[in-house]
Amino acid sequence: MDRYEALSIVEPHLKKSRFEHTKRVVDTAIELADFYGEDTKKAELAAVFHDYCKYRDIKEMEQWIRTEDLPKNLLSFHQELWHAPVGALLAERELGIDDKDILGAIRWHTTGKAGMTKLEKIIFLADYIEPGRDFPGVDRVRDQAKINLNLACFLASKNTIEFLMSKNQPVYPDTFYAYNDLLIQVKENLNGGKN
Amino acid sequence: MDRYEALSIVEPHLKKSRFEHTKRVVDTAIELADFYGEDTKKAELAAVFHDYCKYRDIKEMEQWIRTEDLPKNLLSFHQELWHAPVGALLAERELGIDDKDILGAIRWHTTGKAGMTKLEKIIFLADYIEPGRDFPGVDRVRDQAKINLNLACFLASKNTIEFLMSKNQPVYPDTFYAYNDLLIQVKENLNGGKN
Repeated sequence: MDRYEALSIVEPHLKKSRFEHTKRVVDTAIELADFYGEDTKKAELAAVFHDYCKYRDIKEMEQWIRTEDLPKNLLSFHQELWHAPVGALLAERELGIDDKDILGAIRWHTTGKAGMTKLEKIIFLADYIEPGRDFPGVDRVRDQAKINLNLACFLASKNTIEFLMSKNQPVYPDTFYAYNDLLIQVKENLNGGKN
Repeated sequence: MDRYEALSIVEPHLKKSRFEHTKRVVDTAIELADFYGEDTKKAELAAVFHDYCKYRDIKEMEQWIRTEDLPKNLLSFHQELWHAPVGALLAERELGIDDKDILGAIRWHTTGKAGMTKLEKIIFLADYIEPGRDFPGVDRVRDQAKINLNLACFLASKNTIEFLMSKNQPVYPDTFYAYNDLLIQVKENLNGGKN
């Protein structure tokens, strides 16, 4: 499936602004994949479909989580998290995408997790730093994305957790696990708590 | 076992400053137990022994964690966390304390966990706010401790996580679970992210 075919498949599932976001994530993901020696074709497809289920009916997503092999604790957390695992499930079922790397990248793009693959990190990061994103801390992650993939992902996960906690929001366990796991990988690159 | 006998048992295991801290935790725990309708005798004993293994040899603690029914992931986290679960184990083995409430309160006093009992919350909180503690945010938790036990524990766990993350330190999973769990219990008491 080429980029334009893939985009034409996803477009009807997204609002216009979300489709524009998706195209920026695609560009960013390809750049990162190229820079870090990952398969750019896989990065492209994962990026195109990362938000495939963003606007899926909440009741339908709940049903998929209840009946399929997805973590039931998702139901106790914000619905915003559901589109990623349900998206991976339905990208396979409805679109026939069977590449496990791509499905993993769709599945973990919002929360992250411990032990992310390079492609999973690239999509997690591309979604966070695409040029339309504008929130405190994003420029620092953007700068680091050109230098150290793990450190950029670490800063993104840390920033996400700090933001959620500042709003007294729950934090999904895999987001915490991603923070702890990435910390181990970047410890030597952090100097004295300044990062 | 009365308070003075218990203190005389724990004293040889602690540095002088830690013994003074322990006595302040005892006073604070009894006040909280009295205020929140918990058994003050249990609170007293749990507080006396909460740091029983604080200065236990690291290699010995590592051995207990490896060989007993304690979570192995402790070994991947800071040794500072070990004295609480090992303390609960050895308070039972060496001192014959068999009250599960008291042992639980010793075990979880540093990290907290999801689903803490009232006594566990009281010891977790007493250790955090005893009058010798002086760090950013402690007064706010102290004030809340006289009003709402769950909210005080929530603020303490949130403060701990934010502190650790500001120093790029790992956060033990149960500490995150405590935050998420307490958040559910205090959500109605939080107004618009201001707490």
